[in-house]
Amino acid sequence: MDAWTQLTARIRELDSLNSAAAALDWDQQTYMPPKAAATRGDQTALLQRLYHERFSAPEVGGWLSQLEAADLDDTQRAAVRLNRRRYDRAVKVPSALVEALSQARTEGFHAWVAAKEADDFSTFQPKLQRLLDLTREYASALGSAQCAHPYDALLEEYDPGATVAELRPMFDRLGKELNVLLDALAGRPHPAPFTTVLDEDGQRRLSERVLRDLGFDMEGGRLDKSAHPFTTGLGVGDVRLTTRFFADNFLSGLGSTVHEGGHGMYEQGLPNHLAGTMLNQAAGMGIHESQSRFWENFVGRSLPFFRYLAPRMGALWPTESFSAEQLFGAANRVERSLIRVESDEATYNLHIIVRFTLEVAIVEGKLQAADLPEAWNEAYRTIVGVVAPSPKTGVLQDVHWSSGYFGYFPSYTVGNLYAASFAQCMLRDLPDFWGQVERGEFGAILGWLRTNVHQKGHVTDAPEIFRAVVGDRDPVEDLVAHLWSRQGAVYGVTRPR
Amino acid sequence: MDAWTQLTARIRELDSLNSAAAALDWDQQTYMPPKAAATRGDQTALLQRLYHERFSAPEVGGWLSQLEAADLDDTQRAAVRLNRRRYDRAVKVPSALVEALSQARTEGFHAWVAAKEADDFSTFQPKLQRLLDLTREYASALGSAQCAHPYDALLEEYDPGATVAELRPMFDRLGKELNVLLDALAGRPHPAPFTTVLDEDGQRRLSERVLRDLGFDMEGGRLDKSAHPFTTGLGVGDVRLTTRFFADNFLSGLGSTVHEGGHGMYEQGLPNHLAGTMLNQAAGMGIHESQSRFWENFVGRSLPFFRYLAPRMGALWPTESFSAEQLFGAANRVERSLIRVESDEATYNLHIIVRFTLEVAIVEGKLQAADLPEAWNEAYRTIVGVVAPSPKTGVLQDVHWSSGYFGYFPSYTVGNLYAASFAQCMLRDLPDFWGQVERGEFGAILGWLRTNVHQKGHVTDAPEIFRAVVGDRDPVEDLVAHLWSRQGAVYGVTRPR
Repeated sequence: MDAWTQLTARIRELDSLNSAAAALDWDQQTYMPPKAAATRGDQTALLQRLYHERFSAPEVGGWLSQLEAADLDDTQRAAVRLNRRRYDRAVKVPSALVEALSQARTEGFHAWVAAKEADDFSTFQPKLQRLLDLTREYASALGSAQCAHPYDALLEEYDPGATVAELRPMFDRLGKELNVLLDALAGRPHPAPFTTVLDEDGQRRLSERVLRDLGFDMEGGRLDKSAHPFTTGLGVGDVRLTTRFFADNFLSGLGSTVHEGGHGMYEQGLPNHLAGTMLNQAAGMGIHESQSRFWENFVGRSLPFFRYLAPRMGALWPTESFSAEQLFGAANRVERSLIRVESDEATYNLHIIVRFTLEVAIVEGKLQAADLPEAWNEAYRTIVGVVAPSPKTGVLQDVHWSSGYFGYFPSYTVGNLYAASFAQCMLRDLPDFWGQVERGEFGAILGWLRTNVHQKGHVTDAPEIFRAVVGDRDPVEDLVAHLWSRQGAVYGVTRPR
Repeated sequence: MDAWTQLTARIRELDSLNSAAAALDWDQQTYMPPKAAATRGDQTALLQRLYHERFSAPEVGGWLSQLEAADLDDTQRAAVRLNRRRYDRAVKVPSALVEALSQARTEGFHAWVAAKEADDFSTFQPKLQRLLDLTREYASALGSAQCAHPYDALLEEYDPGATVAELRPMFDRLGKELNVLLDALAGRPHPAPFTTVLDEDGQRRLSERVLRDLGFDMEGGRLDKSAHPFTTGLGVGDVRLTTRFFADNFLSGLGSTVHEGGHGMYEQGLPNHLAGTMLNQAAGMGIHESQSRFWENFVGRSLPFFRYLAPRMGALWPTESFSAEQLFGAANRVERSLIRVESDEATYNLHIIVRFTLEVAIVEGKLQAADLPEAWNEAYRTIVGVVAPSPKTGVLQDVHWSSGYFGYFPSYTVGNLYAASFAQCMLRDLPDFWGQVERGEFGAILGWLRTNVHQKGHVTDAPEIFRAVVGDRDPVEDLVAHLWSRQGAVYGVTRPR
């Protein structure tokens, strides 16, 4: 067998291990009985170890070296390039460090749960310090001549191709522009929230109906409930979404459904014909998030979308009356807020900019765990304009750091930025865009995303996929202009020229 | 590390691989979307291959040899003995034969589905012949000096310790005795069936209630729906049951729930402190089936059980009225029938005796695929007293042969025989047995099974576990006497002396 055949056979095995582990994780978050936790931990750890052993094995490096010297077609060259990057990362980190990190993550997570519950940072601090030390060690083990900044090595884990050099100036401009917007909205009367009580069964049926209408293939996926909504791909033909429902907060559950539907349609649209190359995977978390945010925010919070939805709600709950305008207003309330996951479409990005700023300083060695509560509050004061009364709603609010996910946060705002420019290109390419949304015809929109994003897989990194579609558009300007237009309409303000 | 430490660490890995595969299978039969079939096949095949590679690896044989020469305690000795038997089986069969069988099973299953659908044996016949040839080859590869009959090598796969020499005379006597019973019941008026329409949600809630009452731990397991009810253990703390519901056939769904509950309580009662030895597993399918049949039939079709159940049904469906006597009659209708899975508690065993007789003749080389339709009908005429009008309800009715499961059928009746003698011992040890059932107090009964069966794991084979509890009781007589007493009461006949 030649090196290409052997490499792709190995990757297919790795895909199976990976998707089997994803299936176990999905089950853990949906149906697994509580007493199974330890057993499930053993199963997952074994599959992960087998994955690592079989990917970082010397023969894989050998096949890659042979292929790098061979005459390859474009797809093969892209696959070898991608797998070389991943392989080098997999073998670069000493296994003692991998184990120490895994241990620190488990301990960190448990300490964080207890600390958040008790609203007391001090018990979490030593565990967090350990995670910071190991993360810096990890970043420096991964860092190479190509990395201009040690944080880039962490970004590569979640969003390959993203760099501090590119993100920092974009995030700086975005933060300033959003503050101008929020200042303009402040003091204007808020639209009313939507608190009509709607039964869960009806909400679930509407969620499934909306997903089908958007183009999510229910024969190759499903929707379940979980405490925290998520999407996971269990391999070809199997994309699982979860959402949640609140009787008196219909819009929250709907937003989760549409958001996860965006992730799910991306997974369903990946180029399956490239199975065995790793090129058929998502290009990164930023572009993944662009898909969920595009559907959740640009489409799902628009007035035409609520014009599509309101009569369908009326059919399900005939004793209530629903107004598209009222739903539109309620879905676009804006407020400088403390909690990232509960914040609006504009403020959300300020929460991310805070975390990005702190994480870069952490990796640069400028912040230790003991400094973080104060640094957090200071960054919130400057960037978001609010300060948490205690750690629970401040530095302890997110799970990410406790589980060692440094470098993940930026992808949320990168997703919003990508989505904003994709949307503008779509409006240009599909002149009847809003008419289609209002009529519930989402096929052309999904088709555009299939062609320009989903089918690209990971043949190139996300920034290249983005630029190939949007040309020299400015995503910061696209996002800010969209927010002024959307939220300005709701609050009755226009952007100063 | 010494050989014992290495062996038990490997077995823990094998347990994780096995239970992960079981989780994927559970998902496939409950929630998996249809388009995921091929992906799931790849995942499962990989986990099975990894299991086989890691179990049949030469180092495992080396550890076992070292331990066989070492000074061991009783548990260790039992573990080494069990794993040696399994290891020798795993390495005895040439891998080319394993692959040929796996291929023939896949093709056989698909051909069987189509043939049953078309009610035409001829298209299945060549695939079945291939399975017969490979199964005989397999039995002879496994057969050793210890096996008195080549079929014993197949029994060892599902019910270690069972032999043709022991089963044949028991099955012969049982067949004759059951025919005496069925002749006595024939011509008597049947009790009325129970066809009250009950909503599925209520049936599901009652199923969960009954499972909790029986002693199934819902924190370490769950109940879902599937086309064919089954039970699977996904490791410590995770036992999954499925059942099904029919609006106008409440007793069918209830029977499935109680049956699977019996399997599930056995799985939950296995000796988890022996993890890493394989001794913490079920001792075989026969004893597994004894647990499901004991609860489903001996308890679950009794008048005291319906006295426990009827008021709980009344509370759920207050507009209906339920009589314990009526439910008891309906649950004990007896009829010489064509279809195994739909047959009553007595006739069921005749269906199994037919299959056992044919399978033994197959393995002895006395029957080929082409002979089976005629041999099937002839055996049904003699043993069950009915003949199928066409293959669909005759030789094509079961999935087992199409998937190469030769040697599995006897365990169903072995289970009924074990259950009958266990029940008589319980009546001796728990004088208030039926009073407890009527009051819904199942703790002492479950406790008896925990002590005498579940906690024994697979330290010895099932026949030894059985004999240690029942002494020299005759299980054929116990089963026949129970059926005369139960069904005689319903039909108003008494056993001739």
